[in-house]
Amino acid sequence: MTENRIYNFNAGPAALPLSVLEEIQESFINFKGCGMSITEISHRSKWFDDVINDAIERTRRLLKLDDRFHVLFVQGGASMQFCMIPMNFLPTGQSADYVNTGTWSTKAIKEAQIQGKTVSVVASSEDKNFSYIPKNIAFTPDAAYVHITSNNTIKGTQWAEFPDTNGVPIISDMSSDIMSRPLDIDKFGMIYAGAQKNIGPAGVCMVIVRQDLLERAPDTLPTMLNYNTFAAKNSMFNTPPCFSIYTIQLVLKWLEETIGGLDKMEAINQEKGRLIYGFLDNSDFYRGTAAPDSRSLMNVTFRLPSEELEKTFVQEALDNGLGGLKGHRSVGGCRASIYNASGVDTVEALIDFMKTFERKHG
Amino acid sequence: MTENRIYNFNAGPAALPLSVLEEIQESFINFKGCGMSITEISHRSKWFDDVINDAIERTRRLLKLDDRFHVLFVQGGASMQFCMIPMNFLPTGQSADYVNTGTWSTKAIKEAQIQGKTVSVVASSEDKNFSYIPKNIAFTPDAAYVHITSNNTIKGTQWAEFPDTNGVPIISDMSSDIMSRPLDIDKFGMIYAGAQKNIGPAGVCMVIVRQDLLERAPDTLPTMLNYNTFAAKNSMFNTPPCFSIYTIQLVLKWLEETIGGLDKMEAINQEKGRLIYGFLDNSDFYRGTAAPDSRSLMNVTFRLPSEELEKTFVQEALDNGLGGLKGHRSVGGCRASIYNASGVDTVEALIDFMKTFERKHG
Repeated sequence: MTENRIYNFNAGPAALPLSVLEEIQESFINFKGCGMSITEISHRSKWFDDVINDAIERTRRLLKLDDRFHVLFVQGGASMQFCMIPMNFLPTGQSADYVNTGTWSTKAIKEAQIQGKTVSVVASSEDKNFSYIPKNIAFTPDAAYVHITSNNTIKGTQWAEFPDTNGVPIISDMSSDIMSRPLDIDKFGMIYAGAQKNIGPAGVCMVIVRQDLLERAPDTLPTMLNYNTFAAKNSMFNTPPCFSIYTIQLVLKWLEETIGGLDKMEAINQEKGRLIYGFLDNSDFYRGTAAPDSRSLMNVTFRLPSEELEKTFVQEALDNGLGGLKGHRSVGGCRASIYNASGVDTVEALIDFMKTFERKHG
Repeated sequence: MTENRIYNFNAGPAALPLSVLEEIQESFINFKGCGMSITEISHRSKWFDDVINDAIERTRRLLKLDDRFHVLFVQGGASMQFCMIPMNFLPTGQSADYVNTGTWSTKAIKEAQIQGKTVSVVASSEDKNFSYIPKNIAFTPDAAYVHITSNNTIKGTQWAEFPDTNGVPIISDMSSDIMSRPLDIDKFGMIYAGAQKNIGPAGVCMVIVRQDLLERAPDTLPTMLNYNTFAAKNSMFNTPPCFSIYTIQLVLKWLEETIGGLDKMEAINQEKGRLIYGFLDNSDFYRGTAAPDSRSLMNVTFRLPSEELEKTFVQEALDNGLGGLKGHRSVGGCRASIYNASGVDTVEALIDFMKTFERKHG
């Protein structure tokens, strides 16, 4: 890696493309010759309009969004969406379906219930410690929406394909796998993603929402908790998180112009998965924890023969320039997060280190 | 100015100290030798803990906060606070006092009312187009709190001193003048500030709140809308806006170590005010719009003899390296925002240009 940078396996905030970081650095004192930093320009200026509109247009092209969809930037992370979604889209007297695949789904359910909303948990993988994605789910025909978490960073599971809900709009938390593969947008009423894993730094959540859902929002909501406020004002009712949106714009440009779009991105992510899961499947020392048909291409969770060895593994990896391999504090073990910005070379470096570590300690 | 930077009179996002921008730029690819960008490190890491805790400690020292107060970082700007404040601190059956000094106060009142809360507008300067700060206000003895806007960016007014409310806690939006002068914190239950004017980039709001107010928050609030969530988790219930908090940390370090604290900062701001208002008072060409005893040291609003001349003024200023002098789109005219990061030299450059412009067009 250049400039003593490490291989960064953090779960989020996570690695960003080096070329993006370099562009930010280079223009940081004087953005596009305007004599100010990107952090100092007005959000009402032509300069920032170009930034936010380019980010939106690139999102539209990459995900093949049609005119039904709005692209919004909201603060507060996915956790704020957990409360805004039922507040806006789940009227009293109706019910929404939720699929529980772990920590983030559980929190989304809790934030609906705390508001006194009616939710139906139509499937859960809690019986096997959230190690798989449920199949053959009986969705409620007249549900207001179906909420899922497309990728679980903690357990390392991911929906390989999205379910048929008989026309009920899916609302998906895609914080950890947005833009990692193409989408069939027709299934979705809304997708949202805290930026700090696949598309940018912390501090902004991308929300892609269909017009007909917006029309459900009650007029009595506080202004900043109503999605219509963001849709009506191009996410600039008040000052948006300009720097985070700017970084997203550059990451999306990298996705389109350097990677070549989401088909190419998916192929790279599949190759990364083939390498690391192939290695895990052939190992007697390392053991993957997610069910094979539910494995995440973004977060690879695995165990070593003992917790003692796992601790040593994380430390020796860091000493060798591979950071962030510790599992989430709630589950332990090891985890390699390999989002879009981590190339095949990063996964190869990880496998090399894992082999060396096994020879030494196995 | 160095590197073709302009004199930046933007109302927000606004100028930041050049030394802060340079430090961010220098370490942007590799933060403190950790091999990652500040945008790529985990918020659960020692590196980020040091950043956020240093920002909090510096805030405590600068504002002389005692243990009753929590320092929090919340997303959504001051506009999100407008709704969270009554939600947390104004129980049904009680009333809160609001003083209306312009756009931001008006919005704060609206967000309380939209929730069905009872507010009493105990004073307003709407009768004179919000050009002054009301005096001799009769506050309600048992009000839940008194809400004020300490500085109005649009009209260029500022509370020179804070009112005696007979022990009712003041909650003040200080987005545009936090850290511009020392505070008598005993009068306040909470102060809050969108960072993008005096202390950092857009994307984070600093909230300083007293413990006894936190105890009023109902348990039934969504997690992200309850201040206790932020107080209990050191603002890291979920991923915080790391880059914005990091920039705040550096600005506060600059305030303490380069400027020398808030007494020194206030003296500089008073000198800037003396220069620019002294110039306006002696001019027959330019005319200040705020009442003399209510003038803001942060936002200087003024008019020229005609709207045509104002347009020419803003353009010629920009051509001469002075940017952001256009008044807010809702009121027109001219406005020079001279927050902490704008030194005496910036005000002198403005006055020089104003003299030249008057000679040419007067």
